[in-house]
Amino acid sequence: MAAAGDEIETLIATMARLPGLGPRSARRIVLHLIRRRTGQMAQLAGLMANVAEHARECLVCGNVTGSDICPICEDPDRATGEICVVTDVADLWALERGRAFHGRYHVLGGSLSALDEVGPEDLRIPQLIARIAEEGITEVILALSATVEGQTTAHYIAEALAPTGVAVTGLAQGVPIGGELDYLDDGTITAALRARRKL
Amino acid sequence: MAAAGDEIETLIATMARLPGLGPRSARRIVLHLIRRRTGQMAQLAGLMANVAEHARECLVCGNVTGSDICPICEDPDRATGEICVVTDVADLWALERGRAFHGRYHVLGGSLSALDEVGPEDLRIPQLIARIAEEGITEVILALSATVEGQTTAHYIAEALAPTGVAVTGLAQGVPIGGELDYLDDGTITAALRARRKL
Repeated sequence: MAAAGDEIETLIATMARLPGLGPRSARRIVLHLIRRRTGQMAQLAGLMANVAEHARECLVCGNVTGSDICPICEDPDRATGEICVVTDVADLWALERGRAFHGRYHVLGGSLSALDEVGPEDLRIPQLIARIAEEGITEVILALSATVEGQTTAHYIAEALAPTGVAVTGLAQGVPIGGELDYLDDGTITAALRARRKL
Repeated sequence: MAAAGDEIETLIATMARLPGLGPRSARRIVLHLIRRRTGQMAQLAGLMANVAEHARECLVCGNVTGSDICPICEDPDRATGEICVVTDVADLWALERGRAFHGRYHVLGGSLSALDEVGPEDLRIPQLIARIAEEGITEVILALSATVEGQTTAHYIAEALAPTGVAVTGLAQGVPIGGELDYLDDGTITAALRARRKL
């Protein structure tokens, strides 16, 4: 349909390809923005162009920020000797929201996968091994997904780090906070039972 | 949290204020865009800046496009003598998607509302009356919402158009296509029963 003109239709079609959006929600957002076209829309376009130009991966850990070295890697208070290994930048941001970890991160950028031809050198694992000695790391926490690919990657990293003598740990598996046993899958219940603790 | 740097956080916060999005979905979209920052993200920023600069309301009907007169008002094939009056540009686009109407439109930009101090002159009603004579209109179809404000506006327009002698019609009310009687509200069933037709 050409009711809205080609430029607006192209914008709607591009927005509709974003994750979580479709043609209807994209149209709603574009109409909302057009009503605020001199304010919010121009501002959002500027912010987006700015991030598109300046966003880059931290040369040390792989976090995405506006500088070559991210604020976490630059903060001397976070040189605790602990590195938390995550699959993706989204996982790093999720851990930062939790505010429970005060060390530094290492973003792999994916999981080992023979099917997708993702090998260790694609996942910044050599860089991780180099950081152990460079930064005097004493513990590597593997915060990887509890999936087959995530656990394969965790095993590979644990073996690769064995010669360095660093302590390698993984996130605890069990019942999530607020989780009702009734609704949990068998695998989680079995894992929680096996890893039961003394109260 | 400052994990992602101020520019990216500002972009996420701005996206999160868009209709239908929240902090989580905005973060997901921004991460998706950052991974495609030289391609899709730069393109989307450019499209958005372009629309923010060029989008404007059609001087005749109020449709939003990139030109002073919209494609529908410029198309001589659509001078059918019928004008469809809608509350909002979103309604115009919805009718165009249906491809059932081949005349022109008139966007009011809202509904009459004493509470919100919206009067007839705020709703482009004088412009509608002027168009009747200028464009030789024979029928005005009021495609307004079936709400109290929408129906108040419809009554007001019908009375305002009475001196021009133009035919004023409204959308049919009844059971929606695919609607099951069991799930319909009483008001719709009553309206559908009152407006029953011979088969």
